[in-house]
Amino acid sequence: MSIQKSLQKIIKMIKERDTNLEEFFQNLHPSDFAEIVDDLTDEQKAELFDLLSDEEAAMVIQEMEELDQVVLFQLLTKKRASAILKEMASDDAADLLSELPENEARELLTLIDEDAEELRGLMKYPEDTAGGIMTTEYIAFPENMTVEEAIRRLREIAPEAETVYYVYVVTEEMQVSGVLSLRELIASADGTKLAEIMRKSLISVPVDMDQEEVARLVSKYDLLAVPVVDERQRLLGIVTVDDILDVLEEEATEDMYRRVGAAELESVDLVSASVPSILGRRLPWLIITLIGGLFVGSVIAVFEEALEAVAALVFFIPVIMDMGGNVATQSSTVFVRGVATGEISVEERWGYFMREIRIGVLMGVICGSTVAVAASFWQGDPMLGLVVGIAMSGTVTVAAIIGTLIPLVFSQFGIDPAYASGPLVTTIKDATGLLIYFSIAIRLLPELVNL
Amino acid sequence: MSIQKSLQKIIKMIKERDTNLEEFFQNLHPSDFAEIVDDLTDEQKAELFDLLSDEEAAMVIQEMEELDQVVLFQLLTKKRASAILKEMASDDAADLLSELPENEARELLTLIDEDAEELRGLMKYPEDTAGGIMTTEYIAFPENMTVEEAIRRLREIAPEAETVYYVYVVTEEMQVSGVLSLRELIASADGTKLAEIMRKSLISVPVDMDQEEVARLVSKYDLLAVPVVDERQRLLGIVTVDDILDVLEEEATEDMYRRVGAAELESVDLVSASVPSILGRRLPWLIITLIGGLFVGSVIAVFEEALEAVAALVFFIPVIMDMGGNVATQSSTVFVRGVATGEISVEERWGYFMREIRIGVLMGVICGSTVAVAASFWQGDPMLGLVVGIAMSGTVTVAAIIGTLIPLVFSQFGIDPAYASGPLVTTIKDATGLLIYFSIAIRLLPELVNL
Repeated sequence: MSIQKSLQKIIKMIKERDTNLEEFFQNLHPSDFAEIVDDLTDEQKAELFDLLSDEEAAMVIQEMEELDQVVLFQLLTKKRASAILKEMASDDAADLLSELPENEARELLTLIDEDAEELRGLMKYPEDTAGGIMTTEYIAFPENMTVEEAIRRLREIAPEAETVYYVYVVTEEMQVSGVLSLRELIASADGTKLAEIMRKSLISVPVDMDQEEVARLVSKYDLLAVPVVDERQRLLGIVTVDDILDVLEEEATEDMYRRVGAAELESVDLVSASVPSILGRRLPWLIITLIGGLFVGSVIAVFEEALEAVAALVFFIPVIMDMGGNVATQSSTVFVRGVATGEISVEERWGYFMREIRIGVLMGVICGSTVAVAASFWQGDPMLGLVVGIAMSGTVTVAAIIGTLIPLVFSQFGIDPAYASGPLVTTIKDATGLLIYFSIAIRLLPELVNL
Repeated sequence: MSIQKSLQKIIKMIKERDTNLEEFFQNLHPSDFAEIVDDLTDEQKAELFDLLSDEEAAMVIQEMEELDQVVLFQLLTKKRASAILKEMASDDAADLLSELPENEARELLTLIDEDAEELRGLMKYPEDTAGGIMTTEYIAFPENMTVEEAIRRLREIAPEAETVYYVYVVTEEMQVSGVLSLRELIASADGTKLAEIMRKSLISVPVDMDQEEVARLVSKYDLLAVPVVDERQRLLGIVTVDDILDVLEEEATEDMYRRVGAAELESVDLVSASVPSILGRRLPWLIITLIGGLFVGSVIAVFEEALEAVAALVFFIPVIMDMGGNVATQSSTVFVRGVATGEISVEERWGYFMREIRIGVLMGVICGSTVAVAASFWQGDPMLGLVVGIAMSGTVTVAAIIGTLIPLVFSQFGIDPAYASGPLVTTIKDATGLLIYFSIAIRLLPELVNL
């Protein structure tokens, strides 16, 4: 059923207080439900959520975008809001509280009481670290528990935990000593002690690890969840694979946005944000580009006399700039993505750079020869063709080098290389390319040698 | 331990036939093992794999890149290779067989015999569809089985299945009628029939669904696995979340590469491929850019007389081209990414486009005014400043429109919009921008009105 149709049906049901409504919702996934809610008016939203139990409401809210969650929460009474918060997964609840106005969050926390301490703890971790995306609903059993006992306990607590697919085995001080997947557990004999069958070489992450690194580990080792520990190896929480899927998408979007100067934006913002806030984010990059472009113009201005003598020189400015731009973007995209996915390791970076120089030289020679022939025929001037060809070779080579070198240097200094591909690369490759072009022209063109 | 150190240790162990080798491997994750193997010589690889059991070898090989798998397989005897293939997950085995030379794959399939039919079946699905990434190691139980029986069966077969976290409930014709997560199963009473507690509204995907769409569904509904069915709803296999993580990374890389004309490349290729093969992939895009650049030059050539009269006009060509380029890239990046992540739905596309026009106009006015002032002061000619300013406003607006419109039109015709951001956008925005610039110049500048 399309969203539009579901929507009409729900509105009708709400108006008629239809008794089938409950059944309808039960067959709907909370994620689809959240999409439908998105299209309702505030009044309809409030009315709809009155019909849901706290648990149902929590499941739907967890699937909504953060901005929409905040809007919805402001439609609910404080009592109702705190009841729903209690039913939410602790990581989602903490995220939502962080987004709410501070006094409102504080008030809700006092109403929650029992779980408030836990949520306050989660809220103090930065959003993009292991601590920021972990949940505290994990399962940890002591080392001397038997398989039979563990399975029985699991069957009792399964409905509460965020994931039951890993059971962490802990010491008395809550230090993680091993892990068992649910699959290993159910495949083991009843009387066995957990300490005997647990895997001791488990992968855990420190609470301050960057979420991108956590995602890379989970992906590399095909994990369903990874434990988050403090500096004394004590279990603080777990990060589950469904959150990792979101992190991967978020990080790829962030990288793409940073490349075009729409940095520090959550994807939800750029697509659905207000026009002034978008302007505030995109304009700074444009102003830098503008200054860079004027600087490149001033490089051309140095050669004003040459331009006045041979106007045809101007006709090749676009092709030199565009080719340099294209090569620099290719080089930086492949390098930046290779670093982001871990395919280019830290030690391999300089080797990769050396290979890129070779590629740049070869592409330069090929594109230079092509444009030399084209320019010679177009302007009927082989010497001008030669000048354009040499300039093109130089520009393409330099663009490949700069397109890799600047992100490389950025990453050496711990700056995200995705930032490196904007106005800086553009300005340097344009200025260099045109400088080569005009310098060669005044040396080789007979009309210009006496200038 | 660093890879380099592990490597030295392994080589030493291999040379000395150290008995601790086995223990060492047991504490190493197959994925780390695969990384170490990567750095060995062919001889060392062959020697090392002789020491591993078929099952161990299979686990390591599954973690290797496809190209490395092929290289390794050619070091093994056919008998050994087929024994290892049998131990691999069926999706990985089928992928590897597809990469091997055809006669070799056929020979291996005859040696495998029992599982060969299954692998042949998997090999016929295109690589980037649900069928291409699914495994046949799923768990399906009949509707009338009890919870107790199901848990007992699970404990027996757990070591074999790819994932035990979902149990699919099937009819006698193998049609999927419901699903139970392992968690729901262990939380239910022993005597209950599966049909009574299974969720009937389960999400399944057709075997020919694009892998990107499968990834979006798994991510949206936070699934650990999704069943793949034929047109009669019969269960063919499952796609697990670990494969989805790889798909997300692969698709983001593909999108980024397509944007710069390094299309149809697997990331592993561009980073580690040979120089000639990289040239073959990057050059076509460059040649198109070259033609586009010359075309833009021919637009300038039309205004040769104007250029000869006012040489300063040339100085602003770079800033107009660079600003247009930057705005077009911003617009297309945000739009293409929004479509890829599903944040901009099909119905929202035109609305998004209308908003982008408003943003383009506003950015145009701001950037135009800025550059008008800058140009007036630099050249001491307010009229020239006005011309540059108006041209800039027009270029920025047009760039925002083209940067969104071209990918939008591409997606309407079912072409991946990521392709749309290359030379086509560059050429159109450059030609339009410069055309606006010179047209205004010959109308407004007193030196040019008589041309």
